Amino acid sequence: MDLYFSPLACSMATRIALYEAGADATYLEVDPKTKQVQRDGSDFRDVNSLGLVPTLRTDDDVVLTENAAILQYVAERFPGAGMAAENAQERARLQQWLCFIGTELHKGLFLPLLDRKAPADVHAYTLKKYLSRLDYLNRYLDGRAFVLDHFSVADAYLATVLNWSMATPMIDFKAYPAVTAYLTRMRARPSIARAMAEELELYKAEIARHKAA
Amino acid sequence: MDLYFSPLACSMATRIALYEAGADATYLEVDPKTKQVQRDGSDFRDVNSLGLVPTLRTDDDVVLTENAAILQYVAERFPGAGMAAENAQERARLQQWLCFIGTELHKGLFLPLLDRKAPADVHAYTLKKYLSRLDYLNRYLDGRAFVLDHFSVADAYLATVLNWSMATPMIDFKAYPAVTAYLTRMRARPSIARAMAEELELYKAEIARHKAA
Repeated sequence: MDLYFSPLACSMATRIALYEAGADATYLEVDPKTKQVQRDGSDFRDVNSLGLVPTLRTDDDVVLTENAAILQYVAERFPGAGMAAENAQERARLQQWLCFIGTELHKGLFLPLLDRKAPADVHAYTLKKYLSRLDYLNRYLDGRAFVLDHFSVADAYLATVLNWSMATPMIDFKAYPAVTAYLTRMRARPSIARAMAEELELYKAEIARHKAA
Repeated sequence: MDLYFSPLACSMATRIALYEAGADATYLEVDPKTKQVQRDGSDFRDVNSLGLVPTLRTDDDVVLTENAAILQYVAERFPGAGMAAENAQERARLQQWLCFIGTELHKGLFLPLLDRKAPADVHAYTLKKYLSRLDYLNRYLDGRAFVLDHFSVADAYLATVLNWSMATPMIDFKAYPAVTAYLTRMRARPSIARAMAEELELYKAEIARHKAA
């Protein structure tokens, strides 16, 4: 199994899931600017023409894209890790949360704020439209250990997205205590702590590479 | 089963899926501005605090939110309609496309363009970031009848989102002939033609109601 990823990008959710599962996988770093696969200098767009991570090549040589699809694939490929939904009702709930995290938090709220080249109007517009999603999330997480009733790929995704809060000072996370407590707990989980520490080093190297170029 | 919807919003995808399945359902219109349920004037936010359609109340009284989750629920609730994935590999493919349509097309490209009150910078930024997704979609749909190898809930969703092209003159759809041919075919499909015709009338009534208010 090959995971194409960029350091600290949303592809880290899949790395976390693979670590949870104790799965064998090859991690292929993609430079987000040049779209070069770092290992061999090949063009990542030959694998996924949109150039988006995560992209997963399964052991059956099937190329999968899109975070929610890849995470559900990994959860079901490694049932022993208990990251998948346990029944039809929980599956609907899992899909609901993967969709919420992907559309409302990742795409809606965080992505425009993380883009330093976005016009100021875009940041203001994004906060006005999407900040309420953190209120909703804060109410939901209050008193809960995980998104579902056990650790699942939704937590891998949510922790990855909330981790971007270190680069979004325009959001005052003190207003969302259940969200910050959740993130603190998730960051202490071994699979997540390991993924974040490794990818932070790779991210620093990526920044240094871009500065040198 | 109760579907909370707003006319021509992304909730139309679930209506299409329910029509395909010949399912019994109650359609509860929500005014997107006031969040009032039109039938009884109740506050929709008591059902879904985010105020977002679609929201589905199942026959087991479970409230589901998020388009991708609701569509997969409906597809699996009515297997006879053949709108679900037929095996694990196709399921991954279906989830991939639901995710792509939801994040890249719906949230990324169309939603900011449909917002007439968005600053001009937001429209320019959106086109720069997301227009390439239509190139990708156009290449994918070339020579294909459906998103998968048969009609599925991904088509219900994609047709609903592409239907918004009537309100996004800033996109020149002549550049995407496979996309426009697909939309033309989908609009002719009975379940979709019926849903669009009915919701167009409701949409006109909504506009008139807002003007009168």
